[in-house]
Amino acid sequence: MTSLLDKFSKLGVANAPGQESRQKIDDMDLRGENIAGTPVDFSHGDIDAHPPIPGSFEKFAEGFQVGGVQAYTEYRGKQDIREELAEKLSVFSGAPIDAETELILAPGTQGALFLAAGANIGRGDKVAIIEPDYFANRKMVEFFDGELVPIPMDYFGVQSGSGIDLERLEESFKSGVKLFLFSNPNNPTGAVYSRAEIVSIATLAERYNVDVIVDQLYSRQIFSDCEFTHLRSVPELNPENLLTIIGPSKTESLSGFRLGVGFGSSRMIDRMEKLQAIVSLRAAGYCQAVLRQWFSEPAGWMEQRVADHEAIRNDIHGVFSNADGFKLRLGEGGSYLFPKMPKLAISLADFTKALRLQADVIVTPGTEFGPEFGDSFRINFSQDHQAAVEAIHRTIEIVNRYRV
Amino acid sequence: MTSLLDKFSKLGVANAPGQESRQKIDDMDLRGENIAGTPVDFSHGDIDAHPPIPGSFEKFAEGFQVGGVQAYTEYRGKQDIREELAEKLSVFSGAPIDAETELILAPGTQGALFLAAGANIGRGDKVAIIEPDYFANRKMVEFFDGELVPIPMDYFGVQSGSGIDLERLEESFKSGVKLFLFSNPNNPTGAVYSRAEIVSIATLAERYNVDVIVDQLYSRQIFSDCEFTHLRSVPELNPENLLTIIGPSKTESLSGFRLGVGFGSSRMIDRMEKLQAIVSLRAAGYCQAVLRQWFSEPAGWMEQRVADHEAIRNDIHGVFSNADGFKLRLGEGGSYLFPKMPKLAISLADFTKALRLQADVIVTPGTEFGPEFGDSFRINFSQDHQAAVEAIHRTIEIVNRYRV
Repeated sequence: MTSLLDKFSKLGVANAPGQESRQKIDDMDLRGENIAGTPVDFSHGDIDAHPPIPGSFEKFAEGFQVGGVQAYTEYRGKQDIREELAEKLSVFSGAPIDAETELILAPGTQGALFLAAGANIGRGDKVAIIEPDYFANRKMVEFFDGELVPIPMDYFGVQSGSGIDLERLEESFKSGVKLFLFSNPNNPTGAVYSRAEIVSIATLAERYNVDVIVDQLYSRQIFSDCEFTHLRSVPELNPENLLTIIGPSKTESLSGFRLGVGFGSSRMIDRMEKLQAIVSLRAAGYCQAVLRQWFSEPAGWMEQRVADHEAIRNDIHGVFSNADGFKLRLGEGGSYLFPKMPKLAISLADFTKALRLQADVIVTPGTEFGPEFGDSFRINFSQDHQAAVEAIHRTIEIVNRYRV
Repeated sequence: MTSLLDKFSKLGVANAPGQESRQKIDDMDLRGENIAGTPVDFSHGDIDAHPPIPGSFEKFAEGFQVGGVQAYTEYRGKQDIREELAEKLSVFSGAPIDAETELILAPGTQGALFLAAGANIGRGDKVAIIEPDYFANRKMVEFFDGELVPIPMDYFGVQSGSGIDLERLEESFKSGVKLFLFSNPNNPTGAVYSRAEIVSIATLAERYNVDVIVDQLYSRQIFSDCEFTHLRSVPELNPENLLTIIGPSKTESLSGFRLGVGFGSSRMIDRMEKLQAIVSLRAAGYCQAVLRQWFSEPAGWMEQRVADHEAIRNDIHGVFSNADGFKLRLGEGGSYLFPKMPKLAISLADFTKALRLQADVIVTPGTEFGPEFGDSFRINFSQDHQAAVEAIHRTIEIVNRYRV
């Protein structure tokens, strides 16, 4: 019983995005007056500011009309939808996909990640993860009783690429790591791994026979002058040892349908389907039909969506650049930024509460991404452009009030 | 690594409902000609014959229009929807529910079951389950490294009630079982637990401090002259040690939206939400809106739906009663029946394949519900009435061809 209690004590959700409404407000010594402004919840994107792919709802409606065949799909997803996606994703990712054996639909990218983690992590297995990286990666390893092996990433120290410590990665592989799990673009910094880094990861994984799960959720949102290298497109790694994860919840704003995809290793996908059979059976059948619109957006729609986000990123970066004591790596992809603050007189938890109470701004504490990030927070800048920039000004003002 | 392989080798899905299209066809010695008739897939209900609650799609459309607030709900589900449901479900189940702490939405009833199992089963924990009962119960216990303690149910030996062996249940509780997981009405037999049985279960669970998860998925589909007792309505059991699970996927034909609910123990629900945060975040946000139509069906709609199913059940029971060598317990609730066949000259796996190939009828092998049910199969009779009855005639003919 103790171990189950321990496990769930580590699985906190109080600071998780979207859960702020459940936080209890303790008394704290607030400095100064509240700052008025449009509330901004940087913990996730604002799909009202950046609406879903046009035609998504209509695809859902068509799926509903189809009836039973659409409601009760195979656990890995409806066959003709898998076939369409396998074709689109193989073009996108630069390597072929067998729709029958190498692709599975899941309830959201989180759903695909969970199935992949459960399919690969046994008790005591060593799993290498990047710090900082998506918080659920850490939690899933802990839930499945794996052993975390953190790999640092010097995202401030490099001009391009992620700054992953490849020596530490190789050491960890030598020491018996069986799975490497990471996101590209990185969550929370937006750093995109360079081609050289990706080739090195592939080479090391192949040399030490390590399985790899790469979360490429934001790989369609890459900004100007940045090259994105799909791990599965480089020949160094045996494709059966790699699973790629992607989904339409972010750039495409389809999160409300809970759709994600895992593709690559047929061995991993077979297990993921077995797990799916007890986790939630399948991605909601009618929702699966919406995937027909994915990678088939109206001409120019994705380009505009990415350009809109690049413009917001640039303006927010400009605001931080003019603020004293902040450090910000300009991410090359995705909608996250991970600013490092000047030293505060209060805890990070108290700061995020003060920010919410005094400025109506919600951010995700850096400690969700690794224990050493107590001086950072993550923002998802997929927001109304002007509201986001104003909220960053308010955030900086609140930070300044609580500096040591 | 071995343990993970072992685990997944037990998590087979080849015989799971809806997966038949992935079965490989081996050569087998088929007897006689094929029998023509409307194909019937008894592995799950036919929602084209019994369509979703009127107005469901419109609720989804309203949810989509709401936008971001509906897409990004708390992990436990949108607050106002939880409030509506807490009220309806407390009336239905005969005991109060706090919407804030005692109810969670999940991606399907399967999703709720998985979260509940993960929140309660630690490595080595003894879990009592009924044989026969829903196959995923067994698989979840195995996945979470629990220890199965099977409790027999003499469903042929009783006129009413389930026939649960209460002595064995008490012995198992004495021997250290910490969780009892069962479905009422029983899946696959349709047997409804008597009030006396439910009170005994509550009394024993309280006496030995055992947590209980009861899957009442079909508790709205109870046939004439049968009383259904909600476990949570009897005062013997501490409500904090009980979780009830229900969802609109079956009688209400909303499976394509993947919606389920767990309610009761706030301690279990807190953990379930933590698990939800890494499993799939939440039930699809837009789909959650469909729950507004649940328990708010048009006047008379549910009564008609239940009456339609009772009529199909009765006719199928009549056909089996006239067939030689079959034994069938008439279930008092739900859409499942679990006929026992006369002795066959071929394996159950070969029989189900022959039935599919020669008569276009799909059934679920009894061994999915417990190792000793190699002479039984499950049907979900929520089908087109006439097609179902004809398919049962074909099934009996195929059985007769392969009798010893």
